[in-house]
Amino acid sequence: MEMNYVLDTFFAIFAMTLIILMVPGFAMLEAGLVRTKNVTSVLTVNVMIYAVASLSFMLIGYEYAFGSWDHQDGMSKYAFFMFQMAFVGKVVNIMSGGVSERSRILPLALFTIAVGAFIYPTIVNITWGANFLDGTILDISGLSDLAGSTVIHSTGGWALLAAIFIMGPRRGRFKKNGAIQVIPASNIPLVTLGAFLLWIGWFGFNGGSVGSISSKESADAVALTIMNTNTAGIAGAIIGWLLTYYRYKKFDVTMILNGALGGLVAVTAGPDQYDIYTPILIGAIGGALVVFCVPLFDKLKMDDPVGALSVHLVNGIWGTLAVGIFVSEVSIITQLKGIVIVGAIAFPISYIVIYAINKIFSLRAGEEEQQEGIDVTECGIEAYPEFKRSF
Amino acid sequence: MEMNYVLDTFFAIFAMTLIILMVPGFAMLEAGLVRTKNVTSVLTVNVMIYAVASLSFMLIGYEYAFGSWDHQDGMSKYAFFMFQMAFVGKVVNIMSGGVSERSRILPLALFTIAVGAFIYPTIVNITWGANFLDGTILDISGLSDLAGSTVIHSTGGWALLAAIFIMGPRRGRFKKNGAIQVIPASNIPLVTLGAFLLWIGWFGFNGGSVGSISSKESADAVALTIMNTNTAGIAGAIIGWLLTYYRYKKFDVTMILNGALGGLVAVTAGPDQYDIYTPILIGAIGGALVVFCVPLFDKLKMDDPVGALSVHLVNGIWGTLAVGIFVSEVSIITQLKGIVIVGAIAFPISYIVIYAINKIFSLRAGEEEQQEGIDVTECGIEAYPEFKRSF
Amino acid sequence: MEMNYVLDTFFAIFAMTLIILMVPGFAMLEAGLVRTKNVTSVLTVNVMIYAVASLSFMLIGYEYAFGSWDHQDGMSKYAFFMFQMAFVGKVVNIMSGGVSERSRILPLALFTIAVGAFIYPTIVNITWGANFLDGTILDISGLSDLAGSTVIHSTGGWALLAAIFIMGPRRGRFKKNGAIQVIPASNIPLVTLGAFLLWIGWFGFNGGSVGSISSKESADAVALTIMNTNTAGIAGAIIGWLLTYYRYKKFDVTMILNGALGGLVAVTAGPDQYDIYTPILIGAIGGALVVFCVPLFDKLKMDDPVGALSVHLVNGIWGTLAVGIFVSEVSIITQLKGIVIVGAIAFPISYIVIYAINKIFSLRAGEEEQQEGIDVTECGIEAYPEFKRSF
Repeated sequence: MEMNYVLDTFFAIFAMTLIILMVPGFAMLEAGLVRTKNVTSVLTVNVMIYAVASLSFMLIGYEYAFGSWDHQDGMSKYAFFMFQMAFVGKVVNIMSGGVSERSRILPLALFTIAVGAFIYPTIVNITWGANFLDGTILDISGLSDLAGSTVIHSTGGWALLAAIFIMGPRRGRFKKNGAIQVIPASNIPLVTLGAFLLWIGWFGFNGGSVGSISSKESADAVALTIMNTNTAGIAGAIIGWLLTYYRYKKFDVTMILNGALGGLVAVTAGPDQYDIYTPILIGAIGGALVVFCVPLFDKLKMDDPVGALSVHLVNGIWGTLAVGIFVSEVSIITQLKGIVIVGAIAFPISYIVIYAINKIFSLRAGEEEQQEGIDVTECGIEAYPEFKRSF
Repeated sequence: MEMNYVLDTFFAIFAMTLIILMVPGFAMLEAGLVRTKNVTSVLTVNVMIYAVASLSFMLIGYEYAFGSWDHQDGMSKYAFFMFQMAFVGKVVNIMSGGVSERSRILPLALFTIAVGAFIYPTIVNITWGANFLDGTILDISGLSDLAGSTVIHSTGGWALLAAIFIMGPRRGRFKKNGAIQVIPASNIPLVTLGAFLLWIGWFGFNGGSVGSISSKESADAVALTIMNTNTAGIAGAIIGWLLTYYRYKKFDVTMILNGALGGLVAVTAGPDQYDIYTPILIGAIGGALVVFCVPLFDKLKMDDPVGALSVHLVNGIWGTLAVGIFVSEVSIITQLKGIVIVGAIAFPISYIVIYAINKIFSLRAGEEEQQEGIDVTECGIEAYPEFKRSF
Repeated sequence: MEMNYVLDTFFAIFAMTLIILMVPGFAMLEAGLVRTKNVTSVLTVNVMIYAVASLSFMLIGYEYAFGSWDHQDGMSKYAFFMFQMAFVGKVVNIMSGGVSERSRILPLALFTIAVGAFIYPTIVNITWGANFLDGTILDISGLSDLAGSTVIHSTGGWALLAAIFIMGPRRGRFKKNGAIQVIPASNIPLVTLGAFLLWIGWFGFNGGSVGSISSKESADAVALTIMNTNTAGIAGAIIGWLLTYYRYKKFDVTMILNGALGGLVAVTAGPDQYDIYTPILIGAIGGALVVFCVPLFDKLKMDDPVGALSVHLVNGIWGTLAVGIFVSEVSIITQLKGIVIVGAIAFPISYIVIYAINKIFSLRAGEEEQQEGIDVTECGIEAYPEFKRSF
């Protein structure tokens, strides 16, 4: 018994460490995808999110989500908390990434507090946690969502969707004549580094969500989970690669990496329940969804500089449905109900909160601020002050 | 018993690996903070420090510090060595970072040998190690310093203080008319990446210093230690964020990250002994100390390009005192005595060694070398040879 | 028994995670070493290799190499697979890195499939695996090669040698008058980051190859392996440092880091079998071989932008011989036989496959494509589109 406690604590610490590698992962990915004039602000936002979301969750959200600090006794409660805390910033990251290059930092911090203390804990409460909907018709605790295709990725995606509706596109992104200004990523090595840190962090995210490694069965479940997670990422990358090559005869590494991330989100709901081949299909569809949805959202004039809607919202939904499709014991109706109820909570609450924050504190940066770059107006620090820029 | 040995060996390897992630962590942080003309030399110094300090410690310092290779039997002696070895370079990193942009590499390597073989092992000997002061009035083995607020961070800080006195500021930093030339960081993504690698490495640094994970009690202690470490970093970041915003109405990400590092140093002496809320206060004070001390050292014309004095020396002292303040079983007098004796050994010895090295081998780079950039004169390699520079 | 299974599964997952950190490690190292006009394509190739090699190995190569998915029962078969899968991309990385700046991506993907499905599994089959040469005169299963000085590094090196013969040097590298155009690395921080990620990944590579951590003996073997791995890297760095300083009076950080990598390759065949001092010698010779061979291959007009032949092929051979020299139980004849037979298989097969791919699909990029940069012609994406370039 003591050895199980020790092993599961150690494993949670290991998994948590990998997830926290996703903090620089998101930071590098986004810093690489935006223009140099907005890089410092993107990095500042990423640091802020980790600090503010984690502290809000520790002081308020965690007990609300799980009912108490002592709700489980299989591992150290501190390790369990750290593992759960590592998740919360990701929800805000998904939203903040998608409204990069046009948002101001202090209002974003207010929304971060709301997510860490209230919005995300509400979703956790009704899925993995204390469940205040227990016994009601809205109960979705039967949802099969191992590591958060819905709980994390869709929730962040719904918040982003609300933010995009409220904040509108970046200055100059959609011309009056209908043309779309293509804004290239400013630093491809950072994009690649960030994507791989996220990929590796996912091993901890999904593997750790199995909850235990200390029996033969759970060790197998953890290993299968990590293997399937990786396979879906690989399939997403390859399909992203093939589809962009088929369309443009070029290899678009940002789309390949977003395809991998799409596959990773898609597999996240059930990597412990698939055989080792199913994730190839799930990840490939996930990657394809990214390749198709990114230009689709552009056509809909929904401006998302990092492709977060396609990666996290679309694939969060797809991944949750996939468990119902590919695992016979899981009802697709239960999965659908979970998706709908989480959306019906996360979207309107996020909408109201973001709307209020934007109204009162101007979440959206002004046109001149966007023109000059958020780095100068919000941070007073350029990301690369010594390099001459060509535009 | 065998399982404990296995688990504690595995955990030491895990913790050591995280600490070694701090090697690129320091390298990226410092490479981002200095001007592009000194980036290659900063990176070369970081590689040199890891190699030279580790080898000196392995061949000479380790046995001096701990008395023998077989002084403990709870885990593999090789794992214990690797864990201890991962610390030693940090002491030199603290010093070398603070004298960046004006130091030559070969003399710095000589100082690295001195630290790895002699200076740092002396401090370890009298605190965590064989203790040649045992039974004397100077005995400080009662010092409560889990992972080295004093043993590592202050020691490095004292060495840096000596170096700053001896080497003086960078060329042109303090004008004759009293003005201070502001020298902006050249690459903010690298600063951010480096700070987060350090942050994550700290989990191994402090968590591993608990020394065992193989009982329920020690697993709880490790998890609490890591949680408290993280909390202090978060509090330091947030206070850095609030204070710089209050002062300048801007978000200065380098100050926020240094605030986080200050909080991390401050909690390092006792993260296993606090409840989960105390680190918020300790880290916040740590972050505030950084925000106040960085401009203070500038006023004192003590030039420290990366803020290492504030982060490591000031917070090393603060963190060691904090254990005496917040933990009732720990005497603040014992803590003070430890701080003073370590300072009274580390500062003068470092001063003498650095003074001699500077006199004989010119540790300080000449004015023209600084003007041209250390990269050209010492390395013959530019960090970014293809990018046009604006100055 | 169950605890052993759990621990060895957990440890394999830990080790595998470190190895996968080598994926961004290779990507950053190579992206930093090539010119900015080829950075995106290098990154795209690295992502492609991980995805394509891993999937080919999973679907075809793994069973060919080991005979079945159930050939071992000491840990989860999924963890064992993931650990083995993490190796396969490295073989292609070694080859692709050495033909950077002149290769096209789609043909490289075809070669990646060949390596993942067939070439690398053949080598694994006859060394660590099912061994179809068992009982024949060519049997080399007695080869002492813990983590692949020969199986991984030489195999990749032989493939690179074949590729260099077939593809020739980069445009303009060797002038008609015999002069050699020096092409400086474009981003030294990325080189340093990448090298350290590789270094840390090596702990997982070699430590995990011990195969178990769950007894006192195996825990000691793992810890000794990791310590010796690190020591050889340190020795390689220091010797690289001293030799380049002796020759040029400059500190060439790219050579120092390649010296470290050379030492790491060299120790990889037997880090569990040396005392703690022997790796100093093995790594130092490894580093020296890099310093001498890099200019030698230049003189032979064998163009290798990242020094992979010296690091991986030369040191793969040296490291395999070293076990025979320094470990009395190991026959140097057996080691030599292993080196020769692996070379006699890997080189001609790679030669034929690369020759055919180059003939049919033009692996080598045309002169104009090289002049313009592979990024534009293959990817349509510049790595740093906003930075003005000085050439």
